[in-house]
Amino acid sequence: MLNPSASIYWSELAKKLKPYVPGEQPKDKSYIKLNTNENPYPPSPRVLEAIKEAAGKDLRLYPDPECTQLRKVAGEYYGLAMEEVFIGNGSDELLTFSFQAFFDPGRIVLFPDITYSFYPAICKLCLIDYQTVPLDRDFNIPAQEFCRENGGVIIPNPNAPTGNYLPLHNIRTIVESNPNRAVIIDEAYIDFGGESAVSLIKDHSNLLVIQTLSKSRSLAGLRVGLALGSQELIAGLTRIKDSYNSYPVDRLAMAGAIAAFQDEGYFQETRGKVILTRERTSMSLKQMGFKVTDSQANFIFISHPEVKADILFGRLRETGILVRYFPSPGIDNYLRVSIGTDKDMETFIDALTEILS
Amino acid sequence: MLNPSASIYWSELAKKLKPYVPGEQPKDKSYIKLNTNENPYPPSPRVLEAIKEAAGKDLRLYPDPECTQLRKVAGEYYGLAMEEVFIGNGSDELLTFSFQAFFDPGRIVLFPDITYSFYPAICKLCLIDYQTVPLDRDFNIPAQEFCRENGGVIIPNPNAPTGNYLPLHNIRTIVESNPNRAVIIDEAYIDFGGESAVSLIKDHSNLLVIQTLSKSRSLAGLRVGLALGSQELIAGLTRIKDSYNSYPVDRLAMAGAIAAFQDEGYFQETRGKVILTRERTSMSLKQMGFKVTDSQANFIFISHPEVKADILFGRLRETGILVRYFPSPGIDNYLRVSIGTDKDMETFIDALTEILS
Repeated sequence: MLNPSASIYWSELAKKLKPYVPGEQPKDKSYIKLNTNENPYPPSPRVLEAIKEAAGKDLRLYPDPECTQLRKVAGEYYGLAMEEVFIGNGSDELLTFSFQAFFDPGRIVLFPDITYSFYPAICKLCLIDYQTVPLDRDFNIPAQEFCRENGGVIIPNPNAPTGNYLPLHNIRTIVESNPNRAVIIDEAYIDFGGESAVSLIKDHSNLLVIQTLSKSRSLAGLRVGLALGSQELIAGLTRIKDSYNSYPVDRLAMAGAIAAFQDEGYFQETRGKVILTRERTSMSLKQMGFKVTDSQANFIFISHPEVKADILFGRLRETGILVRYFPSPGIDNYLRVSIGTDKDMETFIDALTEILS
Repeated sequence: MLNPSASIYWSELAKKLKPYVPGEQPKDKSYIKLNTNENPYPPSPRVLEAIKEAAGKDLRLYPDPECTQLRKVAGEYYGLAMEEVFIGNGSDELLTFSFQAFFDPGRIVLFPDITYSFYPAICKLCLIDYQTVPLDRDFNIPAQEFCRENGGVIIPNPNAPTGNYLPLHNIRTIVESNPNRAVIIDEAYIDFGGESAVSLIKDHSNLLVIQTLSKSRSLAGLRVGLALGSQELIAGLTRIKDSYNSYPVDRLAMAGAIAAFQDEGYFQETRGKVILTRERTSMSLKQMGFKVTDSQANFIFISHPEVKADILFGRLRETGILVRYFPSPGIDNYLRVSIGTDKDMETFIDALTEILS
């Protein structure tokens, strides 16, 4: 890797960035991957069928730049008009578009101090100033701290990497306390427990809810995210998109995403299994003496009273299990563990038992 | 559509943008689409096969954020190292990443005054100042005008919407005259005639060549673009990507793109057909009295001495043929016509003959 200041061709912006480092995607298949919050179950068979059908001669044509059909289907699913739905290349793209569309340099944006570490990277890219709001010692988000003067708010709910969920009445308070600012709720993990803020959209034109098909619909490899909000917010996102890339969502992704919303049975079944496995795994870990946050996501956040998290991380890796370790203040004795199948988690528990014995 | 200043939630940036308007994608299929420079031939059967194979359970997993395998295959194809190849979600995304990575606000970037109208939209988004360089009356790019002090250069070659090609020795002159600035050559249409500047990369670390699979490989619906250049330029692009979206290229797009580079026979055959049809169509139009630029792209740029372009545009549309009309100074009496199949172009010529009779 080159030194960040190595090239005379880089812009001042490029030199100053602090790019996000995604979780490891090992090239060989021998690992049990509990490190990037992927769903352990495959996508719905109907999704795969729809993609195969779309893999035909029409791929020579550009996709619909407005994603009309997918927005209609998703709108119906969420009880919104098509004009209240925006589609992006994964929720990461939607986050960047949102920061550009709704946040201004010089006006301080607020987000939790322990949260998705992509936010500061986007702020650097978009020249947005931010302040982080400290969580309490149980990693709860203090809602009232987001009700003071600010240049916009973004909160993941459930939060990452803790899994903690902020009840909907708290979200409403934050949205209502910021009538002149966009409030973004990043609901990447909402389908695994909490109640979505989508129900607040009709009454709050400043609320943008971001969701993704990567986790609860097992489509991390397809890159589809949704932003849900008032027409004026969606129009703002569209202005950014059309200044950046007219067609960020390809034909196959659109076809697959439509099919995903049309297979509710499969969605309910697989998310139910993940939730059950999470509860079962949390209980086992607590019995082993681990501190386990009350996660409403498809991962858990755990800490052992005696053995340091980085040690556990390394030992698990040796046994072929990948989890995520963040060497950051306040969470550097925790591991984030994605929920796999029951079998994956049994292997994980057995490995931990062996390591700790 | 809302008034651009309608929302109090929009950032100052969002209010000031001048978003690009892509060519019409009609929802019904009754049109002969000669308006967005798509390839009239379907993608290689091997590409479709590879996509269908990739539409399996692994879609639950994130794509390789580094696009390793595709970069290796593309690198071998172009005689470059993997580290000299960057993959993006279509060449539009690569253009935006490049502007952010290599151009600075306050330093004047140069591009032709008649060119791809996405460039000014990206400049607005990235706060980049630019100056346009006038073409000569035959729409040729005056290479020497890009050799003066500047903050970076971007030139499409062949140019759009004219199709004019700037010989490689002129590109070399521009690259060599700007040793401290990035020079971007946007080669979206290079496979239909001209000689690529990729051969100059080894000796010029400031040269970035951008290509796409949308045109010559019939994959507009898949969204894959390539940036080719020195390791330090590619590292700059990677910094932007990892501050914006870790995974802009999905698993299906990667699989399809790899297969596209592996089916050289199909590529040569279909691009050869497009070139032949272009030459045949140009000759017919000249015989009908049209002025036709010397296009090396998969479109032609034409003007009639008597009937105004906007009139022709409307009349063609009535007969079910879509072409592109840009109401911009200097080109507002021209039509850009994508090259379809021989049959498409016969229908087009017949319709024009009818309109002009």
